[in-house]
Amino acid sequence: MASALQNSLGTIDRSTVEQIVRQVALEFLGRGKAQAPVLTVQTSSRHMHVCREDMDVLFGPGAELTFDRPLYQEGNFAAKETVTIVGPRSRLISNLRILGPMRKQSQVELAFTDAIMLGFSDIPVRLSGDIAGTPGAIIIGPKGVVELKEGVIRAAIHVHMNPAEAAQFGVAKGDKMKLRIGGQAGLTFNNVHVRVDPTSRLNVHMDTDEANACGLHLTKDIELFK
Amino acid sequence: MASALQNSLGTIDRSTVEQIVRQVALEFLGRGKAQAPVLTVQTSSRHMHVCREDMDVLFGPGAELTFDRPLYQEGNFAAKETVTIVGPRSRLISNLRILGPMRKQSQVELAFTDAIMLGFSDIPVRLSGDIAGTPGAIIIGPKGVVELKEGVIRAAIHVHMNPAEAAQFGVAKGDKMKLRIGGQAGLTFNNVHVRVDPTSRLNVHMDTDEANACGLHLTKDIELFK
Repeated sequence: MASALQNSLGTIDRSTVEQIVRQVALEFLGRGKAQAPVLTVQTSSRHMHVCREDMDVLFGPGAELTFDRPLYQEGNFAAKETVTIVGPRSRLISNLRILGPMRKQSQVELAFTDAIMLGFSDIPVRLSGDIAGTPGAIIIGPKGVVELKEGVIRAAIHVHMNPAEAAQFGVAKGDKMKLRIGGQAGLTFNNVHVRVDPTSRLNVHMDTDEANACGLHLTKDIELFK
Repeated sequence: MASALQNSLGTIDRSTVEQIVRQVALEFLGRGKAQAPVLTVQTSSRHMHVCREDMDVLFGPGAELTFDRPLYQEGNFAAKETVTIVGPRSRLISNLRILGPMRKQSQVELAFTDAIMLGFSDIPVRLSGDIAGTPGAIIIGPKGVVELKEGVIRAAIHVHMNPAEAAQFGVAKGDKMKLRIGGQAGLTFNNVHVRVDPTSRLNVHMDTDEANACGLHLTKDIELFK
């Protein structure tokens, strides 16, 4: 498992650095343009959200997630805790990061490349939380093992925004927008789901396949539109 | 290296199956439309092209590539021969497939995900054959080791076509076209390089990151346009 381990660590490190650089760069570029909301685009590496019940099994009764670093959306964080996921063909990926806070349902978000590596023939593209009928997996923690009956998804690319930003773009929750990424490997995501919440900060979440396909690290030429 | 090995094999198998299914489906859909060239879209898994000199070192003096299966472009084939590639941080990927026939220069084509796995901080997006100034790598064969000084690229998404098809699309060699992939993870590749050759058959080549990002396996709703 050395290679999967190294890949996992490499991806997380790179993603973190990119996220910081992009955020700083875009906030700098956004200065002086009072009208335009500052757009940040972030890459979500594979990760897990865990419910209280599964946390008890994986990390021991009453165990809490340990804060490691903040995520862009207020209150969300990467935890120090990681698990191992075992796919349908007994392949596994170690160091699957847990993101906090805990949720009502456990859920694993993988890029399609990760899913192939684990032996899934396919995983559904879903919005976070919409896991009915999705595949399951075995999750191994330091204190126990959970068999998820469902919850393995590929997260649909989406944009978080608050109601004022939604009004500015002329969109509502459930709408889809387009995200154009410039540069040599440039492409336009045609189905960016709009998620609106008063506490949200404007930013797009894509997975590592999407970020790697478009060379997100190569360009600042990014445009979100209806 | 078990996981990298399995991933490599899994990707190749899946890609082959997809290629056949898509080709049959698109040819079926294309029947009766005498005007429209039949478009095939194929996923290139990571692979290597090898020159005579490096073949001698890797597989022994005078060794030839062994035909394994044909590729869509006339005369091209996947060879039975594979090598191991070692990246800048001593990480490696085994079972890197060689595609034939031999070329004037050795070249390795990786998805960006593969590049990260190997420890490259970045690899350039290039058209095949345009390798000046690109990173190198160590290549290990059964009979010897080659240090490639350059030749590791991420292949730019491109479309092969013959002059009649180019005329029909109204494009010329060096132009760029757009490729829209429908479905849930739908997106539009905005920089599809046009390659024109009398022997070519119309088809698009994308890498595994691109295919996985757009969920190429999920849809037949595909459109190539200027």
